[in-house]
Amino acid sequence: MATKASTPKGFRDFHASDVQRRRYLAGVIQNRFEQFGFGPIETPTLENYGTLMGKYGDEGDRLVFKTLNSGDFLKKARPEVLEAKDSQALLPSISDKAMRYDLTVPFARYTVQHQNDLAFPFKRYQMQLVWRADKPQRGRFREFMQCDADVIGSGSLLQEIELVQLYAQVFQDLGLHGCTIKINHRKVLQGLADYLGASDQIVPFTVALDKLDKIGREKVLAELEGRGFANESLERASSIIELAQNGKVTLQSLSVLIGESETGQQGIQDLQFVMDGVEELGLHQSQIELDITLARGLNYYTGCIFEVAAPDSVQMGSIGGGGRYDDLTGSFGLKNMSGVGVSFGFARIYLVLEELNLFPETATTGTQVLFLNTDHQDDLDVMKTVTRFRESGIRTEYYPDAAKLKKQYNYAEKKGIVHVASLNASDPKIIKLKSLTTGEELEGSIDTIIAAL
Amino acid sequence: MATKASTPKGFRDFHASDVQRRRYLAGVIQNRFEQFGFGPIETPTLENYGTLMGKYGDEGDRLVFKTLNSGDFLKKARPEVLEAKDSQALLPSISDKAMRYDLTVPFARYTVQHQNDLAFPFKRYQMQLVWRADKPQRGRFREFMQCDADVIGSGSLLQEIELVQLYAQVFQDLGLHGCTIKINHRKVLQGLADYLGASDQIVPFTVALDKLDKIGREKVLAELEGRGFANESLERASSIIELAQNGKVTLQSLSVLIGESETGQQGIQDLQFVMDGVEELGLHQSQIELDITLARGLNYYTGCIFEVAAPDSVQMGSIGGGGRYDDLTGSFGLKNMSGVGVSFGFARIYLVLEELNLFPETATTGTQVLFLNTDHQDDLDVMKTVTRFRESGIRTEYYPDAAKLKKQYNYAEKKGIVHVASLNASDPKIIKLKSLTTGEELEGSIDTIIAAL
Repeated sequence: MATKASTPKGFRDFHASDVQRRRYLAGVIQNRFEQFGFGPIETPTLENYGTLMGKYGDEGDRLVFKTLNSGDFLKKARPEVLEAKDSQALLPSISDKAMRYDLTVPFARYTVQHQNDLAFPFKRYQMQLVWRADKPQRGRFREFMQCDADVIGSGSLLQEIELVQLYAQVFQDLGLHGCTIKINHRKVLQGLADYLGASDQIVPFTVALDKLDKIGREKVLAELEGRGFANESLERASSIIELAQNGKVTLQSLSVLIGESETGQQGIQDLQFVMDGVEELGLHQSQIELDITLARGLNYYTGCIFEVAAPDSVQMGSIGGGGRYDDLTGSFGLKNMSGVGVSFGFARIYLVLEELNLFPETATTGTQVLFLNTDHQDDLDVMKTVTRFRESGIRTEYYPDAAKLKKQYNYAEKKGIVHVASLNASDPKIIKLKSLTTGEELEGSIDTIIAAL
Repeated sequence: MATKASTPKGFRDFHASDVQRRRYLAGVIQNRFEQFGFGPIETPTLENYGTLMGKYGDEGDRLVFKTLNSGDFLKKARPEVLEAKDSQALLPSISDKAMRYDLTVPFARYTVQHQNDLAFPFKRYQMQLVWRADKPQRGRFREFMQCDADVIGSGSLLQEIELVQLYAQVFQDLGLHGCTIKINHRKVLQGLADYLGASDQIVPFTVALDKLDKIGREKVLAELEGRGFANESLERASSIIELAQNGKVTLQSLSVLIGESETGQQGIQDLQFVMDGVEELGLHQSQIELDITLARGLNYYTGCIFEVAAPDSVQMGSIGGGGRYDDLTGSFGLKNMSGVGVSFGFARIYLVLEELNLFPETATTGTQVLFLNTDHQDDLDVMKTVTRFRESGIRTEYYPDAAKLKKQYNYAEKKGIVHVASLNASDPKIIKLKSLTTGEELEGSIDTIIAAL
């Protein structure tokens, strides 16, 4: 019986035009990464089980794709575990490798493993697929591209400035105008928590604040109340929210609120430095905006935080994000490496470009000329011409069979080939070229036709 | 405790210069694939278990990496299988997906799944990683790149001619002179088996003949004798081997040997057509050569067979191969699709280019200019200059910290950066550029320096 031809749920094939557009997008980003001094690395699809497990929390551990050991994988399994049908207890004895779940942990592993060969501050970028055993949903896949650039080993805020420039430059290259790079700071959030008199409650506070856009002021306050925030704290939270909603948060107003919270003031200073620098250097078609509701993985980030919003004209969540962290490599035994990085949301940016029709036509480079296969031509005469065309850089095909012309034209149409050509019946040195879009015809020597193309 | 930072056995990291060289090689091949009318496709890393299993023989089945179902994967396991610790019987109930093992089976699955959207003859190429749970050895990895181009849906021998041209063109682009594209035909091998009076024994005959290069004539004959070939057969085999070893096999001599074997004569006719065509069209720096000892997966190929030998100056096995097959898609329910394809041995070609020093310097595009971080400069002045450099397409960095100059120079050296630069202490509009290779210095305005670079 034949096997059913289908991809697994949450996985997909990419057709020629998909692949070429993805390459175009990747190419634009890569080019800028390299202009900013980031070098590409690639890590293997499979990492040791212990490299990945325990790094993403319980939920993450569950969603990591693990591979089965080869051969008699049950050999080392303990009978009582098998008898109990205890999947979780069995796992480590039957799986010693797992699939890349993000680029951050492999990057940390890489940095520690090769630390003696790397030039620090180490600037790397990485564009590779990752896999997550998430429930597949519309637009959410189990295999997707991540695209990260990080500098590790320097605390300089100049990096933050450069990363904002990098975002803006890539969006400019893509013709994507009107992106907003939102910025916040972990220490500003701490300062605000201090102001609320809830210094220890920074996590529930920011988790609630982060939802402001989605659930509105009342619900944020209700959530804080539910978390046990006192009345005075709630009033202060309310005034913060009001500022945020009116778009009136400036570093000055923030500084007044935060008052003597030393941590908070330091966050403000950092933001001031970065925002002043960015303004001085100028961002072409993007803008930078302070957003005190921005939180992003607080356990992880320790300084500036970024998130990029697509232009208002498209409905799309964040198309990028990042920030500064203090301890990327600690879990692999390399301490005190401060780093900062940004991530481009590859799939979402792809969708935005598609929606705004921003993929250049040249991104999809199909065949330009199809030589028709007709009785009156000698195959080798045609092939010689085709060879010349290709040597001139023209993407050319010869239809391989003497099929009906209708079929050959259908082939050209289906492949989006613009020109068909054939050799003159009485003089194979003369080529007839026809445009399928305009109907225009041209007859001439091989040099004439190549020049015309 | 810190996790040990290491890649799993048989897997490796790629550093910046590796990634860039791999991209260069991939780019050259892709460019020619597209000029010959092949479009890129990409299939997912994971396929359904049933798509892959049973397609590669028992050994292959064993070497396919399978992923564990997520969550409580033992739920559906039968207790008696667990009790018996029967790994093979347990497998299908705990794994429903597996990792790409080659590009051929996914291509067949793809073609059948999307047959209504494809233009036939369907010309696709695919360059993706595959995974095999092989014993890792020196130079043999568990993750490696495959690189295939196929045409499916046409029996025309013009395709064979084009594929030989494609090989030669790619090698020419790579500057790789002196490759030999060996050609043979499944039906010629059948004709030779017929001549031996061993028509049914084509497999043991060709398996032995294929080893001639490695084990020599006596051992090939001994192997055939061991397989029960009669004396007369062995004598005839001996004469074939003699021809092959003297390099005296021509299509004419072959035709005489093969005599009235109809299948054999048809193979000769095909080879004649292809070889004449190739000769007429000309192969620049490669050559085509008839090699009757060439076998390659006989269960699979049905017509012409190819294999590419690297230039004599390097010790390297085959760097490519392919051929015509009649039933790629049958196992997915689509019958009678003749196809022909070639494969480039990516990793081996990479090694050959490395050994012959054929990677162009421009393949590895590191940072060109490092601005030194010194006290006498204003950070933002430098950043403005860096921004201008980048806008001019120059890969530029600013060392982010005011570290000792020695450290900054070390950084430049370790990253292979050729130029260091700094702003003039009294006039930040004047830039000083120094070449670390020649020691040459240049001072001038930003435009002067950019022009000089």
